[in-house]
Amino acid sequence: MILGLDHIAIAVDDFEGGIERFAKDFGIELAGTEDVISAKTKTAFLPISGTQIELIHPLNGEGPLVSSLAKRGPGLHHLCFRVDDVEAEMTRLQGLGYRFLSDTPSPGAHGTRIAFIHPKSAGGVLIELAEHPA
Amino acid sequence: MILGLDHIAIAVDDFEGGIERFAKDFGIELAGTEDVISAKTKTAFLPISGTQIELIHPLNGEGPLVSSLAKRGPGLHHLCFRVDDVEAEMTRLQGLGYRFLSDTPSPGAHGTRIAFIHPKSAGGVLIELAEHPA
Repeated sequence: MILGLDHIAIAVDDFEGGIERFAKDFGIELAGTEDVISAKTKTAFLPISGTQIELIHPLNGEGPLVSSLAKRGPGLHHLCFRVDDVEAEMTRLQGLGYRFLSDTPSPGAHGTRIAFIHPKSAGGVLIELAEHPA
Repeated sequence: MILGLDHIAIAVDDFEGGIERFAKDFGIELAGTEDVISAKTKTAFLPISGTQIELIHPLNGEGPLVSSLAKRGPGLHHLCFRVDDVEAEMTRLQGLGYRFLSDTPSPGAHGTRIAFIHPKSAGGVLIELAEHPA
């Protein structure tokens, strides 16, 4: 089942500039940054109101965000729901007609296991499911 | 100052279908709906993790969401920060170079007073500021 809203991800074309905007201009505390090697993504975490804003940027000029930024530009990128069991949720949602970008979960930030629902099967919203380590 | 993340707005091309997706398929409680006449928008409120997801749809086939849905399709639409004083935040952020869609606040859902930062001045993200009634 879905336990909560883990984060809202925003693709930024300038990682330091994005941090400055949200941390300095908007006054949201920067909790930390992480290079997620498996996703080829640099991530900044800014907790707010029981969830967090994550700023995401290509790591070393590589990965899926390069083409996303080139095609759609920077901006709101995806929502992530925290789940108790990512495989069980994939199976349940596939049974309701949702399609996933991959058949099995992959490693995400903070030791999570993640999967993405295809936006075409979810009203145009890219939705990540993340199971946190026990 | 910014007090928290008021909501994440998702533009839906099917209002009832969007509610069914988030409430039934994803299990997020539907707190209510509101027709925001001034914004020509139907809105569904789904509180989650200290913030809320708002599904937005043109009211009676009119308003700014009609062209937004036609141009960009359904999907993530904007973030809204709750502020203590919307005019003071507009002045402060204009001083930092942010541009707004209008020069003065307008009425939003739940008796709020709202203003939107132009996405071109905020890294491609449409950002609403909302001051709630005292």
